[in-house]
Amino acid sequence: MKKSVLTLTLAACTLCLSAPAFAQFAKPEDAIKYRKASFTVLATHFSRLGAMANGKAPFDAKLAADNAEVIATAIKLPWAAFPEGSDMGETKAKPEVWKDAAKFKAGADKAQAEVAKLAAAAKTGNLDNLKAAFGPAAETCKSCHDAFKNK
Amino acid sequence: MKKSVLTLTLAACTLCLSAPAFAQFAKPEDAIKYRKASFTVLATHFSRLGAMANGKAPFDAKLAADNAEVIATAIKLPWAAFPEGSDMGETKAKPEVWKDAAKFKAGADKAQAEVAKLAAAAKTGNLDNLKAAFGPAAETCKSCHDAFKNK
Repeated sequence: MKKSVLTLTLAACTLCLSAPAFAQFAKPEDAIKYRKASFTVLATHFSRLGAMANGKAPFDAKLAADNAEVIATAIKLPWAAFPEGSDMGETKAKPEVWKDAAKFKAGADKAQAEVAKLAAAAKTGNLDNLKAAFGPAAETCKSCHDAFKNK
Repeated sequence: MKKSVLTLTLAACTLCLSAPAFAQFAKPEDAIKYRKASFTVLATHFSRLGAMANGKAPFDAKLAADNAEVIATAIKLPWAAFPEGSDMGETKAKPEVWKDAAKFKAGADKAQAEVAKLAAAAKTGNLDNLKAAFGPAAETCKSCHDAFKNK
């Protein structure tokens, strides 16, 4: 009996270490609040780059670089905050996030890759680079939202 | 008359450039949502460093560095999101944020300086450095919250 408890404890601990997201939020609502917050930060700075890319705001290399720094960090954050059990409450996440976890992860990985490219492009100080990278990054946001987020 | 309109326009434009925060949020509630989101992101990762600093979580150099990267970015964000007129609505900000703007700015500057030091310390991979930097950074959070945030 003691051995099986120990084995279970070690197994749980291994899970903790390999999937720290599950241990990082005390309650599901903490994960929900955090992922919404990180998306809000991401969306705010992403939109500012979009305004420059789409000619709705003047291009400013310093502002573009500042916004790029924020999105480069923010795009990494929300994905660890979708633990099992955080599908209820104040969330627009569809059940598909958990039902089709592989597709969700693939979408998240693609978004991270394209937003990293956008951040790098926005730091070059060249508006054409920003314009070229913005569309593909925005498309990854949209396709994931369509599949995994309620309106 | 034309000249004075031009002068006013140029003056307003200068203000835009020197204080972009006022132009960056379309509505006061957008600024409120954004500043709360950036504080949530900051607090989440700050707390994780605190757990390591205070022995409540095992020290992990990689996790410490990851959390440090987030707080180094997040600490820069909320201060641009306290425009005039964003004192009403879903906010715990006290009127003193705007009434005593110089003190608020001084507190924000101090928090940024101490959190930047904490982020640098957390990236060294040395727990003693993290412990030494955590207290002073936490104190800047607390003193600002006491003065400028309702419970």
